[in-house]
Amino acid sequence: MNPSSSNHTFIKACLRQATDYTPVWLMRQAGRYLPEYCATRAKAGSFMGLATNVDYATEVTLQPLDRYALDAAILFSDILTVPDAMGLGLSFAQGEGPKFAKSVRNEADVASLAVPDMNKLRYVFDAVSSIRKALQERVPLIGFSGSPWTLACYMVEGAGSDDYRHVKTLMYSRPDLMHRILEINADAVAQYLNAQIEAGAQAVMIFDSWGGVLADGAFQTFSLAYTARVLAQVKKEHDGVRIPSIVFTKGGGLWLPEMADLSCDVLGVDWTVNLGKARQQVGGQVGGPGKALQGNLDPNVLFSPPDHIAREVRSVLDSFGKPHANTRTSGPTHIFNLGHGISQYTPPEHVHALVETVHQHSRGLRN
Amino acid sequence: MNPSSSNHTFIKACLRQATDYTPVWLMRQAGRYLPEYCATRAKAGSFMGLATNVDYATEVTLQPLDRYALDAAILFSDILTVPDAMGLGLSFAQGEGPKFAKSVRNEADVASLAVPDMNKLRYVFDAVSSIRKALQERVPLIGFSGSPWTLACYMVEGAGSDDYRHVKTLMYSRPDLMHRILEINADAVAQYLNAQIEAGAQAVMIFDSWGGVLADGAFQTFSLAYTARVLAQVKKEHDGVRIPSIVFTKGGGLWLPEMADLSCDVLGVDWTVNLGKARQQVGGQVGGPGKALQGNLDPNVLFSPPDHIAREVRSVLDSFGKPHANTRTSGPTHIFNLGHGISQYTPPEHVHALVETVHQHSRGLRN
Repeated sequence: MNPSSSNHTFIKACLRQATDYTPVWLMRQAGRYLPEYCATRAKAGSFMGLATNVDYATEVTLQPLDRYALDAAILFSDILTVPDAMGLGLSFAQGEGPKFAKSVRNEADVASLAVPDMNKLRYVFDAVSSIRKALQERVPLIGFSGSPWTLACYMVEGAGSDDYRHVKTLMYSRPDLMHRILEINADAVAQYLNAQIEAGAQAVMIFDSWGGVLADGAFQTFSLAYTARVLAQVKKEHDGVRIPSIVFTKGGGLWLPEMADLSCDVLGVDWTVNLGKARQQVGGQVGGPGKALQGNLDPNVLFSPPDHIAREVRSVLDSFGKPHANTRTSGPTHIFNLGHGISQYTPPEHVHALVETVHQHSRGLRN
Repeated sequence: MNPSSSNHTFIKACLRQATDYTPVWLMRQAGRYLPEYCATRAKAGSFMGLATNVDYATEVTLQPLDRYALDAAILFSDILTVPDAMGLGLSFAQGEGPKFAKSVRNEADVASLAVPDMNKLRYVFDAVSSIRKALQERVPLIGFSGSPWTLACYMVEGAGSDDYRHVKTLMYSRPDLMHRILEINADAVAQYLNAQIEAGAQAVMIFDSWGGVLADGAFQTFSLAYTARVLAQVKKEHDGVRIPSIVFTKGGGLWLPEMADLSCDVLGVDWTVNLGKARQQVGGQVGGPGKALQGNLDPNVLFSPPDHIAREVRSVLDSFGKPHANTRTSGPTHIFNLGHGISQYTPPEHVHALVETVHQHSRGLRN
């Protein structure tokens, strides 16, 4: 094997190399819809108890791989570990979203922020090493982080929000403070992802979960520019092997042409995006530059009967069209995923229909 | 005056006629951010008490016009009056969103749905007549309804939702039932808007508040097609006067090219849309067909100081660019608005900065 590449279908598709079928993994694939996940979480006592325990984190990361023929594993962790390491005090109340003990709202709060000592995130890097070892090269391991803007949303709001009032008030009233937060976040995220790569992550993904709440103009200034700042610092290879990077902006479909300039390999898109149009915009030509695309089934499709699921999965694959088949050069490729995390209410047996249809139909598409 | 047109700046801009300045109104302009609104609501006892009382509804509709130089009034009501008239039992608990006593989830629920007797909505049409009279032609009055899909979301979920799990489960599992609900909704909405027009509404707007949660493909099938079904039945003129229609799909920016085919005059867009690009896509040329555009300031801008508000307002006007000035033919026009309803936390004095900047800067843009 050429040390600069990998035989994993997922990695090849990230790098726009031809594959025999379309690889598939699911955002939040290790999650509450799996009874075995709930059992491990019960043993761990809490979400953070689960995420900070290397053995538990390894166990739950591998659980979906034992059920389904998924083509990648993703580190079990949370997007908010970095602000937690900054001292904001992350917690998850039962049945609620994440919450910070301290929020960042004014000049003094911002002045006290700094890139955290990466040793505080050692539990994450240890989990990466442990998972990588446990995987035994079955499938590649994806590391991840929230984007600088998405972290800032939670840091300023102190929790989830439906109007982003506090973070946008700060952004529109004191852009200087917002830029300072985003600089710190970007540098912290870059260090965090690099440490995951050193610990064994074979690809990295930046979740810009809240980029889509920004206005046109503000997105470019306050989200995209800082994602670019992260990417400028993230290692493109490790031990001579290429480490692909994925950027996913939920609700960012309108900005795909601008995201095409990011120094990353893959763009993730949600279900509002037409994959065929996205391919035209950013997928590139055979032999030319471009981005691989990842997505984009609505997770709610998984509530319908298996034959309906299969039909919708085929429709997503067909909307991307035939991936390129030229093994001597790069070209448009697709990684199948949901357009957002899998719902906790998903019947686990329904996921088989998705994974099997992706593999089967995508092989057919290539003939 | 030609009986088929109007001298109102707002109506002219809707019809892509040249105006001296860009008209402005704000979604939810009669709302909780105004202390006088809260006082009237307290007298009325509840939201529905306010909406069903002709005098109170008239009073609150006119309140923002007394404070600000707005170019249109919008009927004070709720998007969910139609399913309420279908017998689902709408209520608003203090500090919470709308709730239905009965939700629509299965075949029997759907079988019992029908276009409601418009007499049950008489309070709305009476409010329209009363407001129109009270306005004394100061500014035109906009009537409105939720879109068939948006009504269906609430009818199936029974309340607001953050994942639309129930309505999407029904849609993906039993598309036949969903189509039946949407047919009934579309025909009901068309009758409802026509009765508002007969009562005095001078323009009508369809709020597709939740169209943007649909996947590409599902949007066209389950939202856009039924908005088109409404528009096919809505009166284009009344007593010889043109009645412009506006369609606003929150989160629908990616589908603007397809919305260009709707039989309406104006497309509303949220803040994620670049108005310059939207104008290229759907605004048309001078002398040719096209849509007027309405939008799209992020309501959160109103939390920043007035000079910041003015800067962001100018930026939105500039992104649309110079509207056409040819008084003998139609061409691209812009109606300034927010990209969503004004927040209840908005400082009322900040709205002056918005309205004044729109009028002043847009006059300047034309010179």
